[in-house]
Amino acid sequence: MISVGLDVGGTKVLGVAIDLEDPATVLAEQRVPTPDGGGGLVDTLLGLAGSLGPSPDMIGVGVPGLVDRAGTLHMGPHLRRLHDVPLAHLLRERSGLPTWVDNDANCHALAEQTAGAAAGANEALVVTLGTGIGAGIITGGRLLQGANGFAGEPGHMIVDPNGPPCPCGKRGCWERFASGTGLGRLARDAAEGGQLDAAVALAGGDPEAVRGEHVTASARTGDAESLVVLGSFAHWIALGLANLVNILDPSVIVIGGGLVEAADLLLPEVRTRFLGLVLAGERRPTVRIVPAELGERAGAIGAALLGIQAIESVSGGGA
Amino acid sequence: MISVGLDVGGTKVLGVAIDLEDPATVLAEQRVPTPDGGGGLVDTLLGLAGSLGPSPDMIGVGVPGLVDRAGTLHMGPHLRRLHDVPLAHLLRERSGLPTWVDNDANCHALAEQTAGAAAGANEALVVTLGTGIGAGIITGGRLLQGANGFAGEPGHMIVDPNGPPCPCGKRGCWERFASGTGLGRLARDAAEGGQLDAAVALAGGDPEAVRGEHVTASARTGDAESLVVLGSFAHWIALGLANLVNILDPSVIVIGGGLVEAADLLLPEVRTRFLGLVLAGERRPTVRIVPAELGERAGAIGAALLGIQAIESVSGGGA
Repeated sequence: MISVGLDVGGTKVLGVAIDLEDPATVLAEQRVPTPDGGGGLVDTLLGLAGSLGPSPDMIGVGVPGLVDRAGTLHMGPHLRRLHDVPLAHLLRERSGLPTWVDNDANCHALAEQTAGAAAGANEALVVTLGTGIGAGIITGGRLLQGANGFAGEPGHMIVDPNGPPCPCGKRGCWERFASGTGLGRLARDAAEGGQLDAAVALAGGDPEAVRGEHVTASARTGDAESLVVLGSFAHWIALGLANLVNILDPSVIVIGGGLVEAADLLLPEVRTRFLGLVLAGERRPTVRIVPAELGERAGAIGAALLGIQAIESVSGGGA
Repeated sequence: MISVGLDVGGTKVLGVAIDLEDPATVLAEQRVPTPDGGGGLVDTLLGLAGSLGPSPDMIGVGVPGLVDRAGTLHMGPHLRRLHDVPLAHLLRERSGLPTWVDNDANCHALAEQTAGAAAGANEALVVTLGTGIGAGIITGGRLLQGANGFAGEPGHMIVDPNGPPCPCGKRGCWERFASGTGLGRLARDAAEGGQLDAAVALAGGDPEAVRGEHVTASARTGDAESLVVLGSFAHWIALGLANLVNILDPSVIVIGGGLVEAADLLLPEVRTRFLGLVLAGERRPTVRIVPAELGERAGAIGAALLGIQAIESVSGGGA
C-alpha cells in the first residue's frame, strides 16, 4: 500500500510517498511553501499529495500544534488562521481517502521508532530540539496520545518558576532553556557579560546578534568559553530528559531537530549530566541518548505511517 | 478467583483478600508490622497471606521503591536491607502461586482505575501525596510501566534547580514542595518569619514544630495566614500536575495519600492554579482533579489486581 505523508513546517510543507512495506525508502518527494498563517492549507495539502505520483491508498499529515485524536487542529504556532479546524475530516471528504492528522513531533517519533534510531524499541522518547521543543512518546510500541491527543508537550514543563517568560504565558518552561532559542539566550547572556569573544566575532562583532550556531561553530575550534556555554546548555537538556525518564522510563531517547547537527558536541555532555539528574542514575540500566537518523524527512515519513498505527489499533493490536 | 494483595508500608504491611469478580469488596483484611529494614520480608508476606483465609489463587505485592518488570526490588526507601531482591521469584517459589510485585503507587493507580475515583478512565494519573510523592500512570487502560518498570516517579522531577536539597542527591525535586514534607517546610518558613501564629499555637508554641496538619487545622478555622500558606502549597501541587498533563494528557487526576484528608481545602485551589499553569489551559477539555476513593486499602486492593493486568497482557489484551 502506498501512503503519502505531508509534514507542515513553519515555512514549507514536505511531502513524501512511501510503500508501507518498506517505509525507509522514499518513492517520491516534493516541497511547497506553507501558506501564510495556514489559510488555504487543505488545498495546498491536496495539491502536494497529487504531485507525488499515482493516487495513494492513504494520507497522513503532521502539523505543529495541538491536534486532537479526531485530527482536528486546535491551534498551531505558525498557523494563526487555523483554530479548531477539522483537518482530517476535510481532507478525507475532499480526497475520498483514509486520512489521519497528528502532531508533527508524534510523526517524528513514529518514523524514528519504525525505521530510525529507535527502531524496535517499545519504550522510547523522541525529542526534537529546534526553535522550540517537540516530543513524541512511544509506550508499549505505540504512540502515547493521551485522552485528547495532546500528550507529548514537555517543552512547556516548568523547570524554573523564576525563569524567563515564555510566549505561552508562563515562566521557566523547559523550551526557554533547552531549545535553539534557549542556547541563543545563554550565549547572549554570556556575550553581554563580556565573554564569548570568538562567537561574537562570528556574529559580526555584535553581542546581541550571537545565536546558537555561532557558539557551536566556535566550540568546534576549541574555544573554552563556548564550551562552557554548551555545557550549561547540555545541563538544561539533561535536566528535562531526566524529568521525562523519571516519569516514562524509556530505554532510548532520540534527539532530533535543528540542534542534532551539534549532536557530536552536545550528546556526550548531555549523557554525563543526565546520570547525575535522573533518579538512581547509577543503579538503573543505561538509557541510550542518540541522535535522530531520518533527518528532515522524519516528519513526513512518520505522517505516512499514521495509518498503520490507526489500523492496528482498530484490528485489536492495541490496548 | 481469589487474589491476595499485600501492601508494604513504612511501618505496617496491609493484606486483603478479594474476589476478582468484585474487587471493591474486601473479603478479609489483616495488618502486621513491616520488619525493620525489610529483613525477613518474604516470611512476613507469606505469613500474612496465609492468615487471610483459604489458599488464594494468586498473590500481588506493592512495595515502595524501584521494582522492575520481573518483580525484583532494586531499592526501597524504608527497606534498606533489601537491594536487588527478586521478591516475585522468591514468593512464587515459596508459595507455589502465581505472584506479581510492583511499585506501591502503581498498585494505588490500578485500584482507583478499577474500582475507585478513576473507574473507567483509559487515560488517568493517580498521584499520592504523603511524606513523598508517588504516582501511577494509566494509558490505553493499562499501567505505564516503562522499559524497566521504573515509570511513574514524578516526585523527583526537578521543578526548581535552586530549590532545597532532596535526599535523592538533587535539588528542587517536586516532592520537596508538593508533599506533606513540602507543606511542613513552607509552614516552618512562614512561622520562623513571624507568621502563622494560629498554627504555631497548635504546635505547642514552637515554630520549628509546625507541621502540615497544624496548618490545615488552623486553615479550617479560617485563619488567613494559614490559607496563604495552603495557597502556595496548592500552587506547587498544580505546577507539577500541569507538567504531567503537558506530557501525558490524562482525562482525570486522582489525588491520594495522607494529604487527601485536606482535599476539600486544597483541591479547589489546585484546580484554579492548574488552569494557569498547563499549556492552553483555557482551550483544552477539563482535566478532572479528584480525591482518591479507596482510602488506605487502595494499595492492597491494587496489588491484588496486578495479576489481572498481567494475564490480560499475555492473552493478547495489551500492546
